[in-house]
Amino acid sequence: MSTQHRQAKEYLARMLEEHSLEELETRLAPSTEPLPTRLPRDQQLTPAVVDQRWAALAAGEEGKNLLFDPQTQALLERYQRNVENFVGTVKVPVGIAGPLRVNGLFAKGDYYVPLATSEAALVASYHRGAQLISQAGGCSAMLLSEGVGRSPGFAFRDLREAGQFVAWAVQQFEAFRSVAEATTRHGKLSDLRLTVEGNHVYLLLEYRTGDASGQNMVTLATDAVVAHILASSPVKPRHHFLEANLSGDKKASAQSFQSVRGKKVTAEVALPAALVEKVLHTTAQRMTEYWRMSALGGVMSGTLGVQGHYANGLAALYIACGQDAACVAESAVGVTRFELKAEGTLYASVTLPNLMVGTVGGGTGLPSQQACLEILGLGGPGHAHALAEVCAALSLAGELSIIGALCAGHFARAHRQLARG
Amino acid sequence: MSTQHRQAKEYLARMLEEHSLEELETRLAPSTEPLPTRLPRDQQLTPAVVDQRWAALAAGEEGKNLLFDPQTQALLERYQRNVENFVGTVKVPVGIAGPLRVNGLFAKGDYYVPLATSEAALVASYHRGAQLISQAGGCSAMLLSEGVGRSPGFAFRDLREAGQFVAWAVQQFEAFRSVAEATTRHGKLSDLRLTVEGNHVYLLLEYRTGDASGQNMVTLATDAVVAHILASSPVKPRHHFLEANLSGDKKASAQSFQSVRGKKVTAEVALPAALVEKVLHTTAQRMTEYWRMSALGGVMSGTLGVQGHYANGLAALYIACGQDAACVAESAVGVTRFELKAEGTLYASVTLPNLMVGTVGGGTGLPSQQACLEILGLGGPGHAHALAEVCAALSLAGELSIIGALCAGHFARAHRQLARG
Amino acid sequence: MSTQHRQAKEYLARMLEEHSLEELETRLAPSTEPLPTRLPRDQQLTPAVVDQRWAALAAGEEGKNLLFDPQTQALLERYQRNVENFVGTVKVPVGIAGPLRVNGLFAKGDYYVPLATSEAALVASYHRGAQLISQAGGCSAMLLSEGVGRSPGFAFRDLREAGQFVAWAVQQFEAFRSVAEATTRHGKLSDLRLTVEGNHVYLLLEYRTGDASGQNMVTLATDAVVAHILASSPVKPRHHFLEANLSGDKKASAQSFQSVRGKKVTAEVALPAALVEKVLHTTAQRMTEYWRMSALGGVMSGTLGVQGHYANGLAALYIACGQDAACVAESAVGVTRFELKAEGTLYASVTLPNLMVGTVGGGTGLPSQQACLEILGLGGPGHAHALAEVCAALSLAGELSIIGALCAGHFARAHRQLARG
Amino acid sequence: MSTQHRQAKEYLARMLEEHSLEELETRLAPSTEPLPTRLPRDQQLTPAVVDQRWAALAAGEEGKNLLFDPQTQALLERYQRNVENFVGTVKVPVGIAGPLRVNGLFAKGDYYVPLATSEAALVASYHRGAQLISQAGGCSAMLLSEGVGRSPGFAFRDLREAGQFVAWAVQQFEAFRSVAEATTRHGKLSDLRLTVEGNHVYLLLEYRTGDASGQNMVTLATDAVVAHILASSPVKPRHHFLEANLSGDKKASAQSFQSVRGKKVTAEVALPAALVEKVLHTTAQRMTEYWRMSALGGVMSGTLGVQGHYANGLAALYIACGQDAACVAESAVGVTRFELKAEGTLYASVTLPNLMVGTVGGGTGLPSQQACLEILGLGGPGHAHALAEVCAALSLAGELSIIGALCAGHFARAHRQLARG
Repeated sequence: MSTQHRQAKEYLARMLEEHSLEELETRLAPSTEPLPTRLPRDQQLTPAVVDQRWAALAAGEEGKNLLFDPQTQALLERYQRNVENFVGTVKVPVGIAGPLRVNGLFAKGDYYVPLATSEAALVASYHRGAQLISQAGGCSAMLLSEGVGRSPGFAFRDLREAGQFVAWAVQQFEAFRSVAEATTRHGKLSDLRLTVEGNHVYLLLEYRTGDASGQNMVTLATDAVVAHILASSPVKPRHHFLEANLSGDKKASAQSFQSVRGKKVTAEVALPAALVEKVLHTTAQRMTEYWRMSALGGVMSGTLGVQGHYANGLAALYIACGQDAACVAESAVGVTRFELKAEGTLYASVTLPNLMVGTVGGGTGLPSQQACLEILGLGGPGHAHALAEVCAALSLAGELSIIGALCAGHFARAHRQLARG
Repeated sequence: MSTQHRQAKEYLARMLEEHSLEELETRLAPSTEPLPTRLPRDQQLTPAVVDQRWAALAAGEEGKNLLFDPQTQALLERYQRNVENFVGTVKVPVGIAGPLRVNGLFAKGDYYVPLATSEAALVASYHRGAQLISQAGGCSAMLLSEGVGRSPGFAFRDLREAGQFVAWAVQQFEAFRSVAEATTRHGKLSDLRLTVEGNHVYLLLEYRTGDASGQNMVTLATDAVVAHILASSPVKPRHHFLEANLSGDKKASAQSFQSVRGKKVTAEVALPAALVEKVLHTTAQRMTEYWRMSALGGVMSGTLGVQGHYANGLAALYIACGQDAACVAESAVGVTRFELKAEGTLYASVTLPNLMVGTVGGGTGLPSQQACLEILGLGGPGHAHALAEVCAALSLAGELSIIGALCAGHFARAHRQLARG
Repeated sequence: MSTQHRQAKEYLARMLEEHSLEELETRLAPSTEPLPTRLPRDQQLTPAVVDQRWAALAAGEEGKNLLFDPQTQALLERYQRNVENFVGTVKVPVGIAGPLRVNGLFAKGDYYVPLATSEAALVASYHRGAQLISQAGGCSAMLLSEGVGRSPGFAFRDLREAGQFVAWAVQQFEAFRSVAEATTRHGKLSDLRLTVEGNHVYLLLEYRTGDASGQNMVTLATDAVVAHILASSPVKPRHHFLEANLSGDKKASAQSFQSVRGKKVTAEVALPAALVEKVLHTTAQRMTEYWRMSALGGVMSGTLGVQGHYANGLAALYIACGQDAACVAESAVGVTRFELKAEGTLYASVTLPNLMVGTVGGGTGLPSQQACLEILGLGGPGHAHALAEVCAALSLAGELSIIGALCAGHFARAHRQLARG
Repeated sequence: MSTQHRQAKEYLARMLEEHSLEELETRLAPSTEPLPTRLPRDQQLTPAVVDQRWAALAAGEEGKNLLFDPQTQALLERYQRNVENFVGTVKVPVGIAGPLRVNGLFAKGDYYVPLATSEAALVASYHRGAQLISQAGGCSAMLLSEGVGRSPGFAFRDLREAGQFVAWAVQQFEAFRSVAEATTRHGKLSDLRLTVEGNHVYLLLEYRTGDASGQNMVTLATDAVVAHILASSPVKPRHHFLEANLSGDKKASAQSFQSVRGKKVTAEVALPAALVEKVLHTTAQRMTEYWRMSALGGVMSGTLGVQGHYANGLAALYIACGQDAACVAESAVGVTRFELKAEGTLYASVTLPNLMVGTVGGGTGLPSQQACLEILGLGGPGHAHALAEVCAALSLAGELSIIGALCAGHFARAHRQLARG
């Protein structure tokens, strides 16, 4: 949030052209004006309720027609459990990248990947990467680990109490497991980590969540464990919280490299020299020069992991397939590696420790999202592991394509053509 | 990506129940099976082309109807410049949080904030936070800085050449500015940073981008600067790349606290004790206890900044309003602070250094996205600064509401009720 | 490594006053001048060898007398195993902080802490903090965990081979343990972590190292494990390295919060309001205001953990007590927390995940270093755990004292008086 | 600070063999036992005062003789301004690495580098690296930037006040400069950064400090600026602190890559294939394979920058040459890069953004430390820039040597031979 003084001066000068300092004082002050119409309270989702909300918004009829279109009206009840204060749906354009051949532990085959985005060139770039990988016989992919955590926090009078609590808690794994698993059919408590910081103790309860991404599942299970702790612990915490922000939920964190959050997947491909040249119009040598410079660019800018733009493909796939798009913040972290091998072959790999994906629950049951999962062939139970491997394969496709464009000098041109026509 | 050996053993045991080691060897190998049908090449977007794509996908008719619905068909040409390999639109449900009163330098008034999400409880939580803030007279918000960068990289023979290049480049700011600004009506080159790492030199060209988020704008402008450099520099780079991964594009980076990426905004509110208790059912004292514990939780998990869940609100607003959703990866970073003040007042602030938002360009012109911007009253030119301040205010609402729920012990309950009914 | 162009221009201008650009080209070029006298090869350490080295240095007699003084000469053989190319000893002044009362699991009593430093005000500040803690009855301290790792890396042809290696390695913990422990009397292999990144596999072998800091011990033990792997693994790595830089050796790393490196210790104290005012001339309220602002200062500057100046006390104690001073880079990381409690009591805690200390081995057997450990009462076997707890207590003393000085407005004054007289 | 529950259980079991839970409660409780003898208050440094301190310590005569030896007694007054509660000196063995040929902007020639360490193999390793570089004609080195900061923090009632303060402060650079520079002969205020976080404003005042490392200088200058601010600002802060922990003082921080702390230097060398093989017994190819794996190892462990062991050489040089050894925490950060070039040449570079070194002030005037600077030929005014370049060159030597040892498989052997004989 810092600003060199010269830049700050310039900014200030521009700002003060519009507003005087006195005016700023007025603008920023709390206002006691009466508040406008409240939205009708949330309740059973009916067309009438939606109409009332639009009335309160006082927006134009055209907007309402665009969001609350006939199809959305027809499918109204399908949205009841996924959003509150519903007023319609926003339509995000979907393009297809693929076929993307994946040779994974769980994903095996040729995938057409639906990507929802409003950014020109994104689908074209991933599509090119997918073709490249597929022409090489596909990429290998391997799910390495999985787990989703919640981290309740407990504050004690002092370190002595905290120590006694830890001595007790560390023995309770089986008890916690039984309490947690009573709340869920699919969730399994897989590990328990304890973190002591002075008189504060954080637990990190880690779960396997079956085919669901599982955040709600682990919240409810952990809520039960916390209730059990309050009832059973020989030493009572002074206060406690169900989540004390150690779990990495909804944010990039360095710890995902040490543990796991969601699914941890690695994918790789070896591309013959001729194929690199044909599809990317550059060489493996140049791609590895780029990798080296960009890896250190990432390091010096202070990123977690080093990669190019995992966020682009992941956000687009998450939106299309009913995943939690906010999890892009945590999922778009990992490590890309390029190596020049004998005879000009390019070895490329990606490793993502934090893919938050599922094929049941969350937004996966919404109509068009479910349809996107079906395009992938990965809708419903039994497909979460494969979906994670496809995410890694897609990320690999994206890294190859964008870096290829940067190496061939086509990066700006592609954006110019596709975005501006 | 690491795995304790006991967990790895358990994972392996489960995996091998499904696949033998030999089978894995086979599954992961490249496959020379012929590839399936290619999608028709990208071209003018017509219903016939979309039909051909669906035919290639061999997905069901129902899916096609859900994505390529009549409204989408009717608006087909509107999607031409925002996506490739188009097959339809995914419908993301939109709920409204608000009114959210913002007393900002640029945003001034009561905003109804459209949030597109498939996650239950999200809109309800932000809506509650918005009501809380509004009942306190609104939050103050201030745009602190703005700028979007590209970081071309240049490799030289050795440090001597790199030094000579730097000595030249550092004098060229005005020349670079004139070249860059010739490519754009709205972009302004505002700063130049040089980074030397051995014989590598990275430039970071920072631009103001008007009301656009501006990534394409700065790409094209920087492309021109790079061409100018190659033509004019007294010492020629051995190789170079238009973007060498130092700009923080599409990823969380520590550097955003030192510089800016997009818009840097801070927002604050002071909440009287009675209001905290009425709306959140907890106290300022408890909220600050939470803040302390969660701030250190974030620190120990290795996040950049410390905050709760900016990603939730930002992803939902970005999707609704046609922003680049992949930028959630970089935008969902910042600092939340809670303080207990005299008479039980709760002071709360958020600061976000990296909001990538615009009100023109990108997805802002798509039909339903434009309608969402209109609900906010922030569609079109002149509103980007205000939109950034609304994003910060929304983030503040989200922090207050979720932490209130965690303090009052309602967090699990809310998710149970709203997600499971 | 970046530099805003205006600053870079100024720097360049100043530099070019001294050197022209052409001259720089010449200065930076490799030089083929003959090299000066080589130092005599390292060998049995005798006064004659030291004399020869001084002759090669062509430094003055006075310097030689200062480094190779009579006491150093008399104790010459004691330095044989701790340094090469020996020319004498540098004398670092030692001051005492204390008594510092520690109520720990392992450290129990009043400690006089020897601190070797050349920085004025450092000892005075820690001494003041020690008195403050001691007058409150001492601080509590608890060793939370211990372990030192080595991380050999193995590169395979592809992910399939890597997967097979992992499937084998994960079963070998007992075999690795037996091989590792055959190399050491005190080291115990306590855990094994596996990290897969594409076709690369890192192992992290974690050891308990008794009363030694243990870096050499774990190097030799891991060397044996690697030899065993090369002989026994069903799939041979293409190349491998004994340490692949994942262990955090000699550098601050975010992973130390998730695992441990060396000893992990927490310490706390509760200070009555009157004591804070008497000794620090400020209040608990103000100390917590400082803590809040400084914690976010640390976060925004991108540190790992949040703390004030652990490095000062740790470096001084490490140098005095024969610890590996380079480990300050990894040890000076952690979390400080201050809280205002009822009746103006100040709660303060520190948590350090990465204390690399031992009471045998390394420099602990050097004459004056051993004497410093004796001042602490912690020389020789059986004391490493207590030493780690004293390090945490010392860090707590340092945080209290410096923050007290900053709150009372005495920080600059203390430095002015003690450094300038 | 976290601990997997199985490990925690094992630790707990071992701990409870020694102490029961009840005993722990007793051990950790504050103790009201009377405190032991206080040390005599600090005062004029005389032999009698030192004797009194030793009496209070009740340590043996032998320890006293080792720390308070005749040479130390003779030079007693020289230690007056560098330490408090003085009881003698600790003798750290010094070995020489070199000659190290540096072709720098400021350092030019063959340097014998004194390294103070108690760790076997350290000097031998750096010495080998120095020989390697020197035989290649030396390394190039370039000081890129310099500056040392202090970051006072100011808290305001609200954002409106904070904004008014910023609007004022941003105009005051010249006034601040004149106030700051009135306190120092050598310090120059070179930049001002402003950071707004809610109602908190941090200033970062950046100085050039001549040939001193400069921490005290910038503290005193900033103290004057703060006094000026309190007297002149149109809006008064509610509270303020001279240092609010944004400066990176004494800790590794990501921001040092964006700005500078101390001196920022890069160094490089190109080593012919034959030389690599002769001195390191490995190849450039293998060295670059190591670099790639270790760079990602560093990234995945969550370090700032990527490098091997800068801390080893820097700590040893800092101790020998009277630098502030605590600054190793911040200085041992940077980026190492290795590249395979045509004909098997190895290109290697290091870049360190945060070297805190000086040739006047601090410990540089202590007797043996001054002698070490004389061995380097860099004692006294005019040499700080050269010293920084030597530090970078030394770091490069260390990286080459240790990585060479890891590639040749000699790493464990060297430690076994030198530490154990």
